Amino acid sequence: MHRAKPLPGYLIQRYHGWKATSYADNASWYRRLADEGQRPRAMVISCCDSRVHVTSIFGADQGEFFIHRNIANLVPPYEPDGDHHGTSAAVEYAVRVLKVAHLIVLGHSNCGGVKGCIDMCQGKAPEMEAKDSFVGRWMDILRPRYDDVAKLPEGVEQERQLEKLAVMTSLDNLMTFPFLAELVQNGQLTMHGLWTDIAEGGLEYFSAETGQFQPV
Amino acid sequence: MHRAKPLPGYLIQRYHGWKATSYADNASWYRRLADEGQRPRAMVISCCDSRVHVTSIFGADQGEFFIHRNIANLVPPYEPDGDHHGTSAAVEYAVRVLKVAHLIVLGHSNCGGVKGCIDMCQGKAPEMEAKDSFVGRWMDILRPRYDDVAKLPEGVEQERQLEKLAVMTSLDNLMTFPFLAELVQNGQLTMHGLWTDIAEGGLEYFSAETGQFQPV
Amino acid sequence: MHRAKPLPGYLIQRYHGWKATSYADNASWYRRLADEGQRPRAMVISCCDSRVHVTSIFGADQGEFFIHRNIANLVPPYEPDGDHHGTSAAVEYAVRVLKVAHLIVLGHSNCGGVKGCIDMCQGKAPEMEAKDSFVGRWMDILRPRYDDVAKLPEGVEQERQLEKLAVMTSLDNLMTFPFLAELVQNGQLTMHGLWTDIAEGGLEYFSAETGQFQPV
Amino acid sequence: MHRAKPLPGYLIQRYHGWKATSYADNASWYRRLADEGQRPRAMVISCCDSRVHVTSIFGADQGEFFIHRNIANLVPPYEPDGDHHGTSAAVEYAVRVLKVAHLIVLGHSNCGGVKGCIDMCQGKAPEMEAKDSFVGRWMDILRPRYDDVAKLPEGVEQERQLEKLAVMTSLDNLMTFPFLAELVQNGQLTMHGLWTDIAEGGLEYFSAETGQFQPV
Repeated sequence: MHRAKPLPGYLIQRYHGWKATSYADNASWYRRLADEGQRPRAMVISCCDSRVHVTSIFGADQGEFFIHRNIANLVPPYEPDGDHHGTSAAVEYAVRVLKVAHLIVLGHSNCGGVKGCIDMCQGKAPEMEAKDSFVGRWMDILRPRYDDVAKLPEGVEQERQLEKLAVMTSLDNLMTFPFLAELVQNGQLTMHGLWTDIAEGGLEYFSAETGQFQPV
Repeated sequence: MHRAKPLPGYLIQRYHGWKATSYADNASWYRRLADEGQRPRAMVISCCDSRVHVTSIFGADQGEFFIHRNIANLVPPYEPDGDHHGTSAAVEYAVRVLKVAHLIVLGHSNCGGVKGCIDMCQGKAPEMEAKDSFVGRWMDILRPRYDDVAKLPEGVEQERQLEKLAVMTSLDNLMTFPFLAELVQNGQLTMHGLWTDIAEGGLEYFSAETGQFQPV
Repeated sequence: MHRAKPLPGYLIQRYHGWKATSYADNASWYRRLADEGQRPRAMVISCCDSRVHVTSIFGADQGEFFIHRNIANLVPPYEPDGDHHGTSAAVEYAVRVLKVAHLIVLGHSNCGGVKGCIDMCQGKAPEMEAKDSFVGRWMDILRPRYDDVAKLPEGVEQERQLEKLAVMTSLDNLMTFPFLAELVQNGQLTMHGLWTDIAEGGLEYFSAETGQFQPV
Repeated sequence: MHRAKPLPGYLIQRYHGWKATSYADNASWYRRLADEGQRPRAMVISCCDSRVHVTSIFGADQGEFFIHRNIANLVPPYEPDGDHHGTSAAVEYAVRVLKVAHLIVLGHSNCGGVKGCIDMCQGKAPEMEAKDSFVGRWMDILRPRYDDVAKLPEGVEQERQLEKLAVMTSLDNLMTFPFLAELVQNGQLTMHGLWTDIAEGGLEYFSAETGQFQPV
């Protein structure tokens, strides 16, 4: 039995505040969104990290972004093996059902998942090697890219670089989904790779021209 | 090659607006969050749906909630088989690394994933039965609960009920994670089940006492 | 001998109510706050006045605000003379130990301390001039600003204006603390001046651009 | 120049929520409180610590408690020397102007101020001995009581005991204020000493009969 509890009082208070203001001022829009269904223009894949709110950064309103958030904003490769694949299901739904026009992968600085991956690759986190380490097995998606940063100075430089490689890994893996690659090739879907610096509020995008991340 | 594109101009513009205002006024808080790491009080598991923003509903600032979003806010059962499990990794990170105090599952009305599950169970969406339907295989997590709503009038009533059962399924499955169940039993982690009505802005919580969802 | 008495019964009853509900539902968060220490994002300096609850106005939970409350939300100038300075100690602890990101001074309407200051400056409260009048000596901090309101119509207009000048006096005096000024200049600490109207529930902030208080 | 900034957006949102709900539902009470002035039944002296909200613990509404919060809920001795004494001013205002019926000193576990005092007394925090350490000079109020706990096992036991002695020190010092002592002796004012355990939500009061703190 899960013995769920009532919501903490301060959240109930805040909810009632939202209902009486933001909701009340936009009720017709909410009702329309409910009646007609969502029609988001973009899917965003970002991290669960509490310090990264894509809706804040982009001033997004209800209905604009279809957002999947997981550890380290990773997309696994296409693997239609009949198992539960939450990220792949979200991508499929966004691309095939909602027909979003943009697919944005948003990485960020100070990512605990990426840091854990580095520790694991450097033998500093043996517990992450265990079969039952869900975080370890999830970070296996990024693991092959560690070689690309192994020779960088340890610490911030290495972490920042692997955080950006995580974004590119996801973009690469997304292209292994046949239904998605076709749309990208036909120009019906555009992909974007972003990385944000939490401390400084910076935002960089991956430029296919230079092959580098650069400030927007 | 993924041929990522630069960000659309209107998003760049919004980002610069955020940087010059919200970020600028809170730069010291962002820097502190980056330096000291996140310490969110709660993990929220909600849907990717563009119409559901938990940070709006609860007036949350950066740093408050660790948020995982997937199709239909589902948590699969504990299955440490060495594969990539994004949801389980997020739960593990929140509970074991961040040691959140609350775990909130937030369902919602008009959920496309739940609607698809009903269609699938009623034989109306044979394509979702395919092995390579990621959404279909993901909704298999909820599938066994269809029996509980099969006799309800089709349409809104059936959908609302299965949306709420999705929340309870996730709460139940969360309790199959040994490290989580132990914390719940020891009173070190509290779970909460919520369901929000998009059109009316309503919010209900699952009451363990009555066994029903009721308005907060 | 202080002959302390047991708590009045109605407060004991309310406490037990809180313990069985709010505390019980949030026990894991309280335990975590106790184990890991507080990490508030803001310090608030407000008045002792029973009608002003910053935690209500801002839907704050335990752990969010470090709150100092004194008569008329005043901060005296930096004076490291070895005496007991309660307000300066609170500011020092918040800024240097807790490293809060925001420092908010919250003034309010109908402030008895400010009213007393006006009476004192107008010769209507000679008892406040006595050396042993703690309130009188405390309000000396604000006294020099009386000149700025002396020509305003007596009553509400004069009081409101001096209440707002009390907020600005505190902001000015805070900047005389070298360790604080440095952080503000470096963008590591942000200061905010607020004034709330008790009767109407209004909230104004001091705008450095206009040099005026204006509604949020 | 203090260069005050606008309030962070999430706080503005929460404020508008409060205004539209809690305030709106109680506007007549707020207006009456503003028109007639406050008439709190008790003064509470508690710590600035973000984890201690006396209004939560006692379910207090606007207008009930006149609250002074400083580091470690300390009251210095009566010292009418013409300087700024914020705590003494608050006590004087509560007792002589508002004529509160109860004066409650609320201490708490995990108090950073008390911990700092112990470190200072044990020579572990030489920086707190500096003349310009406001926290150090403030904790001098409690310093003489360190002798009473010097022989206790270091750590939790010592800290808890000194936290409770801080409450008693404040009660003792309050009795050095002639106008207050007279009211206590005449039975027109009662004093109460409390200590709350943050982790467990416990509440103890000082019993003059047993000379000990015991659960309410």
